[in-house]
Amino acid sequence: MQDNLYYLPLIVGPVALLVALFFYFRVKAQPDGNETMNRIGNYVREGSMAFLSREYKVLSVYSLVVMALLFYGLGWVAAVCFFAGAFLSLLAGFCGMKAATFANVRTAQAAREGSKPNALLIALDGGAVMGLAVAGLGLIGIAALYLIFKDGDQKSTVLHSFAVGASSIALFARIGGGIYTKAADVGADIAGKVIENIPEDDPRNPGVIADNVGDNVGDVAGMGADIYESMVAAIVSAMAIALTIPAAGLAGLAVGDDSSEEKARWLAIMLPLLLSTIGLAISLVVIFIARLMKNGNPASVLRNSLLIAPVLLTVASFVVMPLLGASQAVTIALAAGAFGGGIIGLVTEYYTASTPIRKIAEACTTGAGTGVIRGLAVGMESIVIPMAVVALAAGISNHFLGLYGIAIAAVGMLGGTAVVMTVDAYGPIADNAGGISEMSGLGKEVRDITDELDAVGNTTAAIGKGFAIGSAILTVLALFSAYNMEINHVRELAGKGTIVLELTDARVLIGLIIGSILPFIVGASTMTAVGRAAGSIVQEIGRQFREIPGLLEGKAEPQPHRIVDISTIAALKEMIFPGTVAIFAPIVVGFLLGPAALAGTLAGSLAVGATLSLFMANAGGAWDNGKKYIEKGKLEGHKKGSDAHKAAVVGDTVGDPFKDTSGPGISILIKVMGVVSLLIAPLIALF
Amino acid sequence: MQDNLYYLPLIVGPVALLVALFFYFRVKAQPDGNETMNRIGNYVREGSMAFLSREYKVLSVYSLVVMALLFYGLGWVAAVCFFAGAFLSLLAGFCGMKAATFANVRTAQAAREGSKPNALLIALDGGAVMGLAVAGLGLIGIAALYLIFKDGDQKSTVLHSFAVGASSIALFARIGGGIYTKAADVGADIAGKVIENIPEDDPRNPGVIADNVGDNVGDVAGMGADIYESMVAAIVSAMAIALTIPAAGLAGLAVGDDSSEEKARWLAIMLPLLLSTIGLAISLVVIFIARLMKNGNPASVLRNSLLIAPVLLTVASFVVMPLLGASQAVTIALAAGAFGGGIIGLVTEYYTASTPIRKIAEACTTGAGTGVIRGLAVGMESIVIPMAVVALAAGISNHFLGLYGIAIAAVGMLGGTAVVMTVDAYGPIADNAGGISEMSGLGKEVRDITDELDAVGNTTAAIGKGFAIGSAILTVLALFSAYNMEINHVRELAGKGTIVLELTDARVLIGLIIGSILPFIVGASTMTAVGRAAGSIVQEIGRQFREIPGLLEGKAEPQPHRIVDISTIAALKEMIFPGTVAIFAPIVVGFLLGPAALAGTLAGSLAVGATLSLFMANAGGAWDNGKKYIEKGKLEGHKKGSDAHKAAVVGDTVGDPFKDTSGPGISILIKVMGVVSLLIAPLIALF
Repeated sequence: MQDNLYYLPLIVGPVALLVALFFYFRVKAQPDGNETMNRIGNYVREGSMAFLSREYKVLSVYSLVVMALLFYGLGWVAAVCFFAGAFLSLLAGFCGMKAATFANVRTAQAAREGSKPNALLIALDGGAVMGLAVAGLGLIGIAALYLIFKDGDQKSTVLHSFAVGASSIALFARIGGGIYTKAADVGADIAGKVIENIPEDDPRNPGVIADNVGDNVGDVAGMGADIYESMVAAIVSAMAIALTIPAAGLAGLAVGDDSSEEKARWLAIMLPLLLSTIGLAISLVVIFIARLMKNGNPASVLRNSLLIAPVLLTVASFVVMPLLGASQAVTIALAAGAFGGGIIGLVTEYYTASTPIRKIAEACTTGAGTGVIRGLAVGMESIVIPMAVVALAAGISNHFLGLYGIAIAAVGMLGGTAVVMTVDAYGPIADNAGGISEMSGLGKEVRDITDELDAVGNTTAAIGKGFAIGSAILTVLALFSAYNMEINHVRELAGKGTIVLELTDARVLIGLIIGSILPFIVGASTMTAVGRAAGSIVQEIGRQFREIPGLLEGKAEPQPHRIVDISTIAALKEMIFPGTVAIFAPIVVGFLLGPAALAGTLAGSLAVGATLSLFMANAGGAWDNGKKYIEKGKLEGHKKGSDAHKAAVVGDTVGDPFKDTSGPGISILIKVMGVVSLLIAPLIALF
Repeated sequence: MQDNLYYLPLIVGPVALLVALFFYFRVKAQPDGNETMNRIGNYVREGSMAFLSREYKVLSVYSLVVMALLFYGLGWVAAVCFFAGAFLSLLAGFCGMKAATFANVRTAQAAREGSKPNALLIALDGGAVMGLAVAGLGLIGIAALYLIFKDGDQKSTVLHSFAVGASSIALFARIGGGIYTKAADVGADIAGKVIENIPEDDPRNPGVIADNVGDNVGDVAGMGADIYESMVAAIVSAMAIALTIPAAGLAGLAVGDDSSEEKARWLAIMLPLLLSTIGLAISLVVIFIARLMKNGNPASVLRNSLLIAPVLLTVASFVVMPLLGASQAVTIALAAGAFGGGIIGLVTEYYTASTPIRKIAEACTTGAGTGVIRGLAVGMESIVIPMAVVALAAGISNHFLGLYGIAIAAVGMLGGTAVVMTVDAYGPIADNAGGISEMSGLGKEVRDITDELDAVGNTTAAIGKGFAIGSAILTVLALFSAYNMEINHVRELAGKGTIVLELTDARVLIGLIIGSILPFIVGASTMTAVGRAAGSIVQEIGRQFREIPGLLEGKAEPQPHRIVDISTIAALKEMIFPGTVAIFAPIVVGFLLGPAALAGTLAGSLAVGATLSLFMANAGGAWDNGKKYIEKGKLEGHKKGSDAHKAAVVGDTVGDPFKDTSGPGISILIKVMGVVSLLIAPLIALF
């Protein structure tokens, strides 16, 4: 059959990387401002890269251990593919972070020159480097490995191992980055207010640089690894289902002249790669359109970019499917996911930017307690529609294409990965540009431009996060199905007869209870980790003000490196426990209690993890914007510094680890568990 | 066979009720203090009974509608049994509330006379009326109905309908009571502080009476209906499994001369009733032992009462099983549940009274935000061991006795229902006694006694709550199994062949997602309901201070009835939405998407609901005690009124709806869903 279609990702992928390279050099070639700006920019870049290189060292040790285990348990192919999945994630993170930390100071400079369109363009290009690297490298990796191994009998192992590599890095990058960014943020804030009473972003505060580093570490590197992993897991779960599903599960997929099972299975395996390739091509187009619109309103440029991708993807699929002899059911499943993602994004935007934040601000007038209560209620309410949309997308795609359809819906939701990631990485660049302007003492006009760009970033970040978590849930549903099929596929090959993973099986029920615990373990440990790390930072800042003569008067330089060091070490230390739980929980349950208990565990952690992470992410975003609502003077009679504002700051503080550490940490937990379970399925299937 | 064993509950049950009656008149015969105390006591009693009678009116309408539906769908037997289940719950609540509101003022009087043992005894007797009424009426109801219908073919319908009656009342009593108590509490606090700046429990504040009423409405009537429902649901699910489980599932239950299937099934059906009867008899003994120890330290008297019941129950079962020709596997399953409950209670006590609350208090020194974060982390961490214990208890009981064993474990955890409820109802009596002493201006020595009794109540309340939620989870696991079996039992009888509720079934997965949403809907709506209702109360209090001349100066009387009225109406209005969701969600899913989707929905809401309710209840308890830790001066350098204390008050405010409204509301949600699903199973089995 048309196996040359497998080469398509290997053409579009490298093109995307070339474009990323072009953006990278374009950004680097922009003017980088005065000496102060450069010094601060360098601090931030060095801090970010220092964190990354230390983190990579830790991850190298981890990877070597896992590779040894994989080599022992599943052979060298698994070890190599695991390495590839992990390495490409690190590579994408490295390039994206470099670009972002060049772009931030240059965005500030463009704003200093008074050109908002140029500033927007630089921030966008900087983000696009990450976006294209993530999508391009992920696609190239899966396609190349599958092409190499597709005629052997290790196909499944190749895919699963690659996904586990991607997941492992995402797990640690997300949790470590999340702890870093919020420890630095909270630490610098508390120290500034409590110890020395100096304003936010003041250059005397040695924690401010770490705070800016944190934005890159968390929202660029961490988010990038997370989205890379989601895309990989979605493609892999769809291909895994395609490889193991009984023939009846693919009925109706192939239409026209050749509707044989062989054709259907070939289509099923190839489509996830092809659709993702189309998605990447469309993303390239969307990014260039966005660049052309640079003179428009930044908010609508970014927002429309996110929402146009699903439309183009659906149209493209509608055109291509008949050419392949594939049913339009694929297009329907794909569209269910792609539009579902868009709706989830818009709902997330509503809950973190509209009426609900006004209600939070109003609740703050009767105290911090009522403000926190209202934020928690908003967060809880905010999960309802997104989860219902996921259920609906799953229901539609399943109706037309069975379980395989659910996986295709996940691929569809992640079709615009490059655009989503571009917009996500844009956020911290604009945010950093503002911080650098402030610290360098640039004027109000400059801040006005960076503030506008930053504000846009906050809203689009919410949409992006909605996409990310929504796709994670759909992906985990697909991974879960893939796991269940793999178990029975292996049993059949071994002549052991299939087992039914029944809800009436006590092992499944016990697994369900165990699974429901895990997200809370990750939530609790990441919340306390942020508190502990922030405490060490507060102490070090206090020490510097005590021991460096002239620092408080602005006559001496602070030592930001020390804070960056402390944050880095604390984040890397604190990420070990939750990370280990995520990876070993499925292994322990699987080998100790068997495949049925593990299936229950996955179901329990999916139900709890999906809702809890959405709740935490959205509550955090809502509190943050509730505070900003008051700061902008929108709540009559209560301005910045009022009691209501102080109450809102309490909500914001609670929301910090909610939205940037625990929420994302729990969402990655459920993905990692799904991927690891899929990998070990062959080893425990005969339990 | 020995069918006269069925009469045992009808002997022990009435004995328990006679003892309750004795306690009731004994309490009423105690001296009731001076005129002021009596006036305030009357206010509280009238307010409590007024709420109850209004709530009962609303529930009557609801019950009539449901009875009509049941009559139409399942026949008159279902309608009658539903009525019995609901009516007995209301009756228990009515008697218990009467006793509690007589006991509170008399406990204060005993303290005024300087006799701590007498004060303890009165509070204990008052609580025991509720405890014995709940356990006695529940047991009598099930046993009598089963005895009447046991030879017909409506056995299952009888049991399920009775349980749905119990659940319906529990649902509305718990949610309505929870909204009332926290709206009054938060409303009175805010109004006192913000509007007029008068101290807590000040007789001038018209909201204080409503606050005291709320303790009875929430913690006596609400908690009573909840525990009554848990006991009923545990017995019913065990009997339902016994009626429908395939013979293989009962293998090994009957030992000795007659190990036939017939004997095993007879045992399986009879044991839940017998073991609960033994539990009630043991509870009577434990309550009398506790009364004899009245001169001891109140804390250890109550704590030991809770922990001795499981031991006696296990011993009794060990002695009785051989006499019945039943396997000691029953004793093991029973003990797994009973001791599991004890461990959960102790863990709950640890998280709400030990190191964790010190950490919360310490975190409050850096602000309200960090205090709230720490409390949330403590709450999250606190679910780990209890859930693991439930999984372990389920695992052990399943290992020895299959799915039926899990139901027996639930029966075991609820064996000491009467004791748990006695101790639970003791809490608000002691709390009210303190409030009445304060409002009546009794001296410090009196307050010292009531304070000590109240403090004990807080700790034992935590243990009782742990028991309640732990048993709820185990009960829902059993209900869930019963549901799955009922579906296939009905299908088999109809000659339609069994269906397998597979985890790979897309409908199950979609159900899982839907189910995971529901606890968040109930959580969000109850949190906002408390906020809204508290707002109306604040307004009315403000109005009274403005419009009643001399109120602020203490020269005129406030109008507490108005506040009680407002709270009552608000609570009854606000309970409709979450209550409707709980009852109709399973019906809608079941009839629209079928039995597989409903099974998934139950699994999803179980996983999310169990963890979320434990988390909220424990976080709330921990914040409350963290605040008290500072108030007692245990945090060096930070006393009442300090910044750290103010920060702790914020946590306590957030914790109020967490622990007394949303947490319990979510726990009852999952039970109601299980019971309703079991009831409608025959109607949707052939979907």
